[in-house]
Amino acid sequence: MRQTRRVETVPRRANQVATLRALRAAAPARLTQLHRDTGLSRPTVEAAVGELLDAGWAVQIDPDPEVASPGRPARRYVFNARAGYALGVDLAPHRVLARLTDLDGVTVGEFQAAVDPSDDRATVLSALRYAARRCLAQAGVPDTALCAVGVASPGVVGRDGTVLFSVLPGWAGQNLAEELSGDFPCPVLVENDSNLAAVAEHWRGSIKGSDDALAVLSGLRTGAGLILGGRLHRGNAGAAGETGALPQLGWARAQDRILAFPGLPADVPQADRAERVFAMARAGDEAALSAIDAYTADLAEGIAAIVLTVDPEVVVLCGGFWSSADLLLEPLRAHLEPLCLVVPRLVVSSLGDTSATLGAVRIALGRLEQVLYDADLPLPVPPVRR
Amino acid sequence: MRQTRRVETVPRRANQVATLRALRAAAPARLTQLHRDTGLSRPTVEAAVGELLDAGWAVQIDPDPEVASPGRPARRYVFNARAGYALGVDLAPHRVLARLTDLDGVTVGEFQAAVDPSDDRATVLSALRYAARRCLAQAGVPDTALCAVGVASPGVVGRDGTVLFSVLPGWAGQNLAEELSGDFPCPVLVENDSNLAAVAEHWRGSIKGSDDALAVLSGLRTGAGLILGGRLHRGNAGAAGETGALPQLGWARAQDRILAFPGLPADVPQADRAERVFAMARAGDEAALSAIDAYTADLAEGIAAIVLTVDPEVVVLCGGFWSSADLLLEPLRAHLEPLCLVVPRLVVSSLGDTSATLGAVRIALGRLEQVLYDADLPLPVPPVRR
Repeated sequence: MRQTRRVETVPRRANQVATLRALRAAAPARLTQLHRDTGLSRPTVEAAVGELLDAGWAVQIDPDPEVASPGRPARRYVFNARAGYALGVDLAPHRVLARLTDLDGVTVGEFQAAVDPSDDRATVLSALRYAARRCLAQAGVPDTALCAVGVASPGVVGRDGTVLFSVLPGWAGQNLAEELSGDFPCPVLVENDSNLAAVAEHWRGSIKGSDDALAVLSGLRTGAGLILGGRLHRGNAGAAGETGALPQLGWARAQDRILAFPGLPADVPQADRAERVFAMARAGDEAALSAIDAYTADLAEGIAAIVLTVDPEVVVLCGGFWSSADLLLEPLRAHLEPLCLVVPRLVVSSLGDTSATLGAVRIALGRLEQVLYDADLPLPVPPVRR
Repeated sequence: MRQTRRVETVPRRANQVATLRALRAAAPARLTQLHRDTGLSRPTVEAAVGELLDAGWAVQIDPDPEVASPGRPARRYVFNARAGYALGVDLAPHRVLARLTDLDGVTVGEFQAAVDPSDDRATVLSALRYAARRCLAQAGVPDTALCAVGVASPGVVGRDGTVLFSVLPGWAGQNLAEELSGDFPCPVLVENDSNLAAVAEHWRGSIKGSDDALAVLSGLRTGAGLILGGRLHRGNAGAAGETGALPQLGWARAQDRILAFPGLPADVPQADRAERVFAMARAGDEAALSAIDAYTADLAEGIAAIVLTVDPEVVVLCGGFWSSADLLLEPLRAHLEPLCLVVPRLVVSSLGDTSATLGAVRIALGRLEQVLYDADLPLPVPPVRR
């Protein structure tokens, strides 16, 4: 169903928004194309492009040498992806990973700081600040050039950035966004890590184009993020995807099938145990293969509960165990078969184990777009010009 | 984010659609109000109203005697809710319930035919046809006046009306919609009964205005329907809400806690057993109260899995046990508390145990609206004029 409405006046800012959207979609575009794509008159588009050039949101590039056109070659324009930067940080159990991208989401820097699952909150926050700072410094980008910072955190995150529940001691009840607000001269957004993995996989990973999909974070922690109707489904309190909290399902014990594998010497550090079990399985060790089978059986119980509830088109496996997905996929499928009425497609992340980090970048970019595309707000100053 | 688009021409049909929408929302409306609500010019609105009057989709009513206005009183118009009818039929375990409504969803007839859970498919279909025919006959409405028929069926229903899975023997693999297409001179739509209960509760029941809600069908069968983002969430294959199929959760055995209650003589017929247990509990029978507690504990496991997965704002209890919800609500809440991170609001259906029937009416009306509100299709002939 559609609504037909007469729009009598199109103010200047709305023309900028329409032109910006067309410019980002076309990349690069000539005035003729922008005129066609926006439905705006040619002088209107030309004026809007002029304003975007002046502000620094668009740049003119050389005419396309491939296109032979009579007379003066047509000028081409692109969105200025270096008008600002986005920073995404993921608080994983054994590492804090920061990634810096331009406004097209192209990575310009990355930095990783080691942590331990037993580290206290203050230590994890110091790692976060350190990874973020080093990432910026190595790329030569000042923090004033950031449009926003996104943080992927374990636990349920409320709308205002307060962590409502967390497996990490000391995290619940703290407003992480507020706590970090003094560290960066831009908005800081916090979201659950599994939710952000789902966002990234939907943006440019293995579930791109799927409107109903489940992302399962498989690793030292197990979590789920849902894309429903083409958008992240956070739930009413931000607590969607927490199916694993139900003791009747297998997620609470799943990781221990691998981490506490008795075939491994007790002195192997926790950070290395999973890789060792996977290596043994690859070498044909029956006990290691059984441990993996038991892990996927537990994983399947929680996945089945989610699949039966929302019936997604596809399930993507991401997280720390991603690099061993070849060992997980078939047993997981076998355990899902008898539990699900309809078994969805099962795929592996194409983003490695960095999907939560990339999802954090995405919400930072989303924050900029909120302002950039709101015709009721003035055209913002690009972060690099601040 | 919004998109601004210049709409150069508004064709006649689009004006009709805008006027119809405004007319249905206002009920009744004067031309001045329709002019204001649609944003269309007064002559355009007047022309559209004239076309709708001619076609039979609108009727003129007497001027409001309460409003004193100088000169000639302004004419008032309403949508013609008797331009057609919608029929909804629910295939419940012990009865087939048919409800006939006008196009505003106001009930004009109802008929119930008894069935038994052990009845074969042919018997249930004969009851469906009988209930539908008697409902029409008693109301004096010919079947040609129907815009569509909606059927609430147990089981997973595919997009084309094929029942994919069902607890009822002989139902899976059959296309119910196709099978009934020869019985009515209008489209027949089939949807899962729990899904339709959710649709009805969201339309005019206890979850009206809630965009993320769970409807739980509690009765001789247990089922779930989800409203997410303000719409029914069917899932990719129509299999959403089938959480109860997971044996790890309690839904498969839940009803038996009550139906197989040992404190009841074995010769009490199945249709009366639940009511008898609820009556004993009301009289203070400890064993009956325990059976109800065990039932709600089982129910809570499946509800918790759904709540943890999608985090709805509210859960509405509907279905056959609705009239005993006073006995169920508190134990259910107590069992949900330890299982859920965030316990949603818990409410009881305001539609009695007819929510699936009303949901079937709603999808029949939805089918008409698809045609009525599509500006690319010609204005349909009202069913009563066919």
